[in-house]
Amino acid sequence: MIQGDPLKNIRVVLTQPSHPGNIGATARAMKTMGLGALYLVNPRHFPHAEAAARASGALDVLERATVCTSLPEALRDCVLAVATSSRQRELRHDVMSAREAARAIVSDAAAYPVALVFGNETSGLSSEEAGLCNWWAYVPANPEYASLNLAAAVQIFAYELRMAAVEGTLARVAEFAPATSEQVEQLYRHFEQTMIESGFLDPANPKRLLPRLRRLLARARLESDEVNILRGFLKTVGKPLLK
Amino acid sequence: MIQGDPLKNIRVVLTQPSHPGNIGATARAMKTMGLGALYLVNPRHFPHAEAAARASGALDVLERATVCTSLPEALRDCVLAVATSSRQRELRHDVMSAREAARAIVSDAAAYPVALVFGNETSGLSSEEAGLCNWWAYVPANPEYASLNLAAAVQIFAYELRMAAVEGTLARVAEFAPATSEQVEQLYRHFEQTMIESGFLDPANPKRLLPRLRRLLARARLESDEVNILRGFLKTVGKPLLK
Repeated sequence: MIQGDPLKNIRVVLTQPSHPGNIGATARAMKTMGLGALYLVNPRHFPHAEAAARASGALDVLERATVCTSLPEALRDCVLAVATSSRQRELRHDVMSAREAARAIVSDAAAYPVALVFGNETSGLSSEEAGLCNWWAYVPANPEYASLNLAAAVQIFAYELRMAAVEGTLARVAEFAPATSEQVEQLYRHFEQTMIESGFLDPANPKRLLPRLRRLLARARLESDEVNILRGFLKTVGKPLLK
Repeated sequence: MIQGDPLKNIRVVLTQPSHPGNIGATARAMKTMGLGALYLVNPRHFPHAEAAARASGALDVLERATVCTSLPEALRDCVLAVATSSRQRELRHDVMSAREAARAIVSDAAAYPVALVFGNETSGLSSEEAGLCNWWAYVPANPEYASLNLAAAVQIFAYELRMAAVEGTLARVAEFAPATSEQVEQLYRHFEQTMIESGFLDPANPKRLLPRLRRLLARARLESDEVNILRGFLKTVGKPLLK
C-alpha cells in the first residue's frame, strides 16, 4: 500500500495499441500531468523509434513501461479498473463522465493501485476486456465525431486526474481493505462453477447470466473479507452438490 | 445540440506552427469537441499530407482553415482573445486556469466571436503576440514537465470549452430498474435462510456475518433483475439441502 501522491498509484493501461507513435504520445501526455506508470498489453510494435520520438521529454515513462501479455496481468493488485470510451457504451457497467470518474479514481488511489484502461485505436475495448473493469468512463465528446486520438483521450483523462488530485478530494474512508481484481475474478469463477454444478446455469445455454453477474460484482466494489465470506458460502452450498 | 451553440463562435488560432502533423491533430482535437473554426498564422507547411493524415475524420476542419499573415488578422471581429500556456506566465495579464477561462469564453461566445491563441511549438507566444490578447490561460500541468504537445494542449482547452458549454446538462446515464428496498430485504432473508440451512451460519453464534451481508447488499445498489437472478440461484442451491 502506497500512501501519498494519488497520481503515483494510477496506472494507464493501453491494450493492444497498434501505432507506436500513440504509445510515445501517451507517455508524454501522462508525464505532463504527473502520471508515470504505463502498462502495455500486447503492443504491436514496442519498443519503436516513433514511440521514442513522440515521447519527447517523457522517455523515462516509456523506458519504465511494463509490457504484459494479458489484461488481468496488467490489472493485478488493482482495487479499481476503469474502462474508457469516447462514447457512452452499452449499459453493462456503471457509466460516468471522465470528470466524475477522475474524482473517484483519485480518491481510491490515495491508498491503493488503480487502473485506467484504454482499448485499441480501431476496435476499442472488447466486451471481455471491459468485463474485467469496474466502471466505464467516457469523454463527453461531439456525438457527430467522437473519434478522439488514443493519446488525446489519455491526455484528457490524465488532465482530469491531475485536476481532481489538486482539488484535494477526500480519501475514501477505507474501513476494510478492498478486494483486488484478482480476488474478484476468483469469486466470479467460483460463482460460475457453483451455478453450473447446481444446474442453475446451463453452460450450453448461458444466456446473459454470466455477464450480468460480472457487472454486479464490478459495481459492488467488494472488500477482501466479503470475497472470503461469499466464497466460504459457495463452498458450503457447493458440497452437497458433489455428493 | 448545445443550446445557442457558443462553440460555433470560438476560433482556435495557431501562430506559426512548425509541424504539419500538429495542425492536423489540432483539427481532429477541435472536431471531437464540436469546434470548427481553425485559423493558422504563417504556418511553416500548409497544406501538407501529414496534416491531412493526422486530421483523420476532421479533414473538413482542415480544409476550411483560414490562413492569415498576422495575428491581428486572425483576431479580427473577436471581442475576446485568450493566450494559452502550459505554464503560469509572467503576470502582465489576468491569468486563469483552462477551466476558469473556458467558462468565461463560453459565456462571451454565446453572442460574439472569441479566439483562443496558441504559440509556436518551441518558442510559444511572443510578448508582442500575447500583448494582443486579453488574458492568459494555462493548463495546470506537472511543474517538473509541463511540455504539452501543441495538439494535446488544444485538446484540453477544447474539452474544457465543451464541458463549459454543456455544464449542467450532463445527466448520469439511466440504468436498469433499481431494486426496491423490499426486494433487497427479501434477498437478504433468502441469503440468511440458505446460510443457516447449509450450515454456513450458526444462528446461535452468527458473529458479524449478517450485518456484513447487509452492508454489502446496500452498497451494491442492486437492480431488480439482479435480485431475481440471485434468488433463483439461492433457490437452486438450497434445494439439495432440504432433502
